[in-house]
Order: sequence, then structure tokens, then C-alpha cells
Amino acid sequence: MILSVLDLVGVAVFAISGALAAGRKSLDLLGVVVIAVVTAVGGGTLRDVLLDRHPIFWIAHPMYIVVITAAALATVAWSRRLRPPEKSLVIADALGLALFSITGAQIAQQAGLSPVIVIMMGTMTGTAGGMMRDVLTAEIPMILRPTMELYATAAIAGIALYLGLEALGVPRDPSAVAGMAAIAALRLAAILTNLKLPVFSLPPEVGKPPPG
Amino acid sequence: MILSVLDLVGVAVFAISGALAAGRKSLDLLGVVVIAVVTAVGGGTLRDVLLDRHPIFWIAHPMYIVVITAAALATVAWSRRLRPPEKSLVIADALGLALFSITGAQIAQQAGLSPVIVIMMGTMTGTAGGMMRDVLTAEIPMILRPTMELYATAAIAGIALYLGLEALGVPRDPSAVAGMAAIAALRLAAILTNLKLPVFSLPPEVGKPPPG
Amino acid sequence: MILSVLDLVGVAVFAISGALAAGRKSLDLLGVVVIAVVTAVGGGTLRDVLLDRHPIFWIAHPMYIVVITAAALATVAWSRRLRPPEKSLVIADALGLALFSITGAQIAQQAGLSPVIVIMMGTMTGTAGGMMRDVLTAEIPMILRPTMELYATAAIAGIALYLGLEALGVPRDPSAVAGMAAIAALRLAAILTNLKLPVFSLPPEVGKPPPG
Repeated sequence: MILSVLDLVGVAVFAISGALAAGRKSLDLLGVVVIAVVTAVGGGTLRDVLLDRHPIFWIAHPMYIVVITAAALATVAWSRRLRPPEKSLVIADALGLALFSITGAQIAQQAGLSPVIVIMMGTMTGTAGGMMRDVLTAEIPMILRPTMELYATAAIAGIALYLGLEALGVPRDPSAVAGMAAIAALRLAAILTNLKLPVFSLPPEVGKPPPG
Repeated sequence: MILSVLDLVGVAVFAISGALAAGRKSLDLLGVVVIAVVTAVGGGTLRDVLLDRHPIFWIAHPMYIVVITAAALATVAWSRRLRPPEKSLVIADALGLALFSITGAQIAQQAGLSPVIVIMMGTMTGTAGGMMRDVLTAEIPMILRPTMELYATAAIAGIALYLGLEALGVPRDPSAVAGMAAIAALRLAAILTNLKLPVFSLPPEVGKPPPG
Repeated sequence: MILSVLDLVGVAVFAISGALAAGRKSLDLLGVVVIAVVTAVGGGTLRDVLLDRHPIFWIAHPMYIVVITAAALATVAWSRRLRPPEKSLVIADALGLALFSITGAQIAQQAGLSPVIVIMMGTMTGTAGGMMRDVLTAEIPMILRPTMELYATAAIAGIALYLGLEALGVPRDPSAVAGMAAIAALRLAAILTNLKLPVFSLPPEVGKPPPG
């Protein structure tokens, strides 16, 4: 796979989101770079490890790590003077989610896996890096919490659309573009309309092993 | 390996425990499914990755993911009206621990590994998913804390019994059943008698790198 | 690779640091051993998984697990009466960091990887176990926080020195020794002079997805 500009823009956006999360936790510069790297490549790495695809994509193409480090340090430099362009970042993040979810799904597809696993691998490619970012900053992953508008759900829906269109005979590339558009549109529409999944809430003691 | 009913019941029980943990943290429905999946397949996945067994068991058999998702959503539906059947869940969980620990140990055994690693891999198969569940919900893993009655310890003892019986010439299947029975019995006896491992407690500043 | 005494001393030191962290969180004895194992072998395991090196080093050499378990339990026994020898531990930890970072880098080098990835893999080998220890004890990894004197940074600098010397024609072994000496010296000097990386600090709401 040749690195496309799109791929590099995608990891850069995820790197910025990681760097900002590191800043909210007041980490040091190394912490900023580590969180940025984990956020940007965590999902694809997990996918590659689980599918036994070696070399892992960023080991084959170290340019990813260079771009991520540069994006993380640029975020620090920018933030010394200006607030991050939050609206643009939200839009870029939705596009990154769309891109990585569909390309991740395609990789699982090429390995001949069943639709359930293709959807899981695609969604994981798009979202697991952000979950690792949150775990490393000692937070419950944002995308699992009821304060978050549709995120992984948008990825699942878009991948399902992509697979459905292909199954109906639509060629691969237009199906992929439709899937990506659906993910980005659903994510952004969810933010605008404050659309969230229902919450599942239990009292703290329910279902815990009883005191002996 | 053909999926046995037993295996599927085992992952379903672990999925329920994950779904309940997600409910205690008030996650959304996607969070419930993610935590359920991680709890149910996390241990076996770590084992397969570390032993380089591909395809990972649930990639080979996506039915696992279907059963886990169904169990997680059924837990949500059930909990809207009724409390979870806590006693039954504790018993089912002990059986799940017993099943996964011994089958995990057998997989490591078939790879020709030494007893130390067989015990570790078996215990990890039975317990690492629950540890990942706790990490994702921003808790120190329950099974490492002194409030928990014997859990991983029961798995270690049962696997050691299984290996010991085999070494003494007892055939594989009865040895495995004896090991599983020992794990479940030890776990349940520990709950009934409040049996815990000793705690190791240090003041918060001991052994920290000194301020420079 | 034959296990050297040095390697075993290195994992033992990291195991002690893990056991002490477990004690500060008042875990039980199993928790102490689990945290010690993760701290000591976590970095090398991640390296081996990412580089597809099988069997993982401690599966090939279970002696690692035996030494780690013994070191963890000895730490518990010692701490019942005496405070841990904090100064000696800090020095031993710096030597462990130096050893693992350079040997980790060499393993990546032998796989023919580029300098960026060699530095990353070496640093990860030396530091990821400690990060996993902190995640399992529900803390933001110590080495990412601004309260920590140079740690991963020392590893990066020492590996870069090692690669630079080799590139200049210095033979492998003296280059490696120089790199290790640089890491340990830099780490200890940073502690003595309280040398830290700059912090990146943002208000808690910056860059978060806006409420919909």
C-alpha cells in the first residue's frame, strides 16, 4: 500500500486530538507525543496484530510516526498562542473516522473474513486508538459514555452500508465512498442534533460479587 | 475446534458480567457491547496473540461475537425490569472461570510449553478479560484487590492439579474435569468462607522515585 | 539468545518496582505478582508482538517468570520489616532502563528496521512495562507526567547515540556500551538536577468535542 496524502492527514488529525487530550491532563512533551502516537495508530495496530498482518503498517511506513510527532509538536506550539480550531477539528475527526473505518473494513474483507468481523475490525480501526488515549489518561473511553454523540455507531452503520452496497452489486470504490460519506454525515448530524445512544445505568452494587 | 455449547455459555456469562459492569458505570449501549466483548474474549485473545495462534478464536468463529452481543443486550433488557440473578451469576462465573482456565491451559500444553507457562496462559485465559473490563471502566482490576475472594488463585491451583494428575498418569479428560471441579469449588468455597489472599500494603510514598 | 545474569537482574529490578507500586495500592499477593510480571516483561512483550517475534522471550525462557515471581515475593517479605533501599533501587532502575532500551533497539535493528522504528522499539522495551503497571493501578503513566525527571527521553537520547556511533564506524559492542552509559547517566543526572521536560497544559475544556 502506498501512503496516500489522505492517510497521512487522517493520522495527523488523530494525533492532534491525542495531543490536546495530553494537554488537558498537563503531560510533558514526551507524554504529548506518546499519546498522539497511540491515538493515531492504536486502532490500526490492534487490527494488524489481531489479523496477523506483518509488518504492522507504521513499521512498514515510519513516515506515519514522523508525521504524528510533527503534528503533536505543532499542536503544542500553536496552543501556546491560539485556541485550537475546534470546529474544524471536529469535522476533520469525523472524516478521519470515516476513512479509517472503511479502509480497516476493506483490509478485513481482503482477508476473507465474515461481515460481523469486517464490521468489528473496521470500527476498531477507527475508534480503538481514541479508546487507548483515554485509558492512558485514566479516563473511561469517551466513545462508550452517554455524553458522546454517535461515534462508533456511525462507523458501524457506514461499514454496513458499504458491505450492503457491494452485496447489491455496486462496485467497490463507489460503495466505499458512500460508506465513508455516511459515517462522516451521521457523526456530524449526531453532533448537530445531539443524537446519542440510550444509556444503561445500574446502581453501583448491582451484579457485583456479593461480600463473602 | 468445534464450538461447544459449553464454550458459548461460558462467553455469555462473561458477557453478562461485562454488561453489568458497564451499567454500573452508566455507559451507553455501544459501551455495554464493547465491554461485554472485551470481558468475554479478552483473555483468550491475549493468549492467542502471545502464542501466535491465528486466526484468533473469535475471528475463526464469529458466532462468539454474535452470542456476546445478544447476551449483552439481553442483560440490558432484563435489567430494565428485574435485578440480575446475582447468585446464579456468581455460580455461572465460577464455572466459566473453570472452563476457560483449563481449556486455555490445554492450548498452551498442545504448543509444548513448560508448566509455568501453561499455568500462566490458563489463568490469563480465565481472568484477563475481566481485568481488561476493569481497566476500561477506570478501575484497578477487581481480582488484584484484597476485597476479592480467591479467583485467579483458584485457577492456578486447579490447573496445577490438572497437570499433576496427568503427570501421575491419569488420562487427560478426567484430569481436566478434576481441575475444573477444583477451580469452581475453590472459588465458591472462598466466597462462602470469605477466603482472601493476604494484602501487601505500603504507605503511598514508599519506593517512589524521590523528588529530584 | 542465552539468558545473561544481566538480563535477569534487569527484570528483577523492574519486578521490584512493580511490587512496590502494588503495595502502594494495597493489592493482594496475586496482584503483587501480576503487577511485577507486567512491569518486568510488558515492554519486551509488546516489542515482540509488534515485530512478530515468536516465541515471545519469556515463553521461550520461563526462567524470567520464576525470577520475577521470586523478586516480587521477596519484596513483600523484605517490606514487612524494612523500608526498600530507595536510592539503590533508583540506580538499579536506571541501569535496567539502559539495558533494556539498548537491547530492545538491537533487536529492532536486526530485523532491518529504520532508525525511527529502532528508537521507538528500544524506548518501548525499556518503558512500556512501567506504563502498563501504572494503567493497571489506575494511574496516568508516571513517565508521561511533568513531575518525572527525564526517563524515556534518556532512552531516546542513548539509543540515538548508539546508532550514531555505529553509523560513524564504531564497532557494535562499544557503541552499545556507550549508549547504555549515556542512558543511565542522563537519567541519574536528571534526578540529581531535577531536570524535566516542559509541560503542555491546556484548560480542561479545550479541544473537547463541543456539547451537541
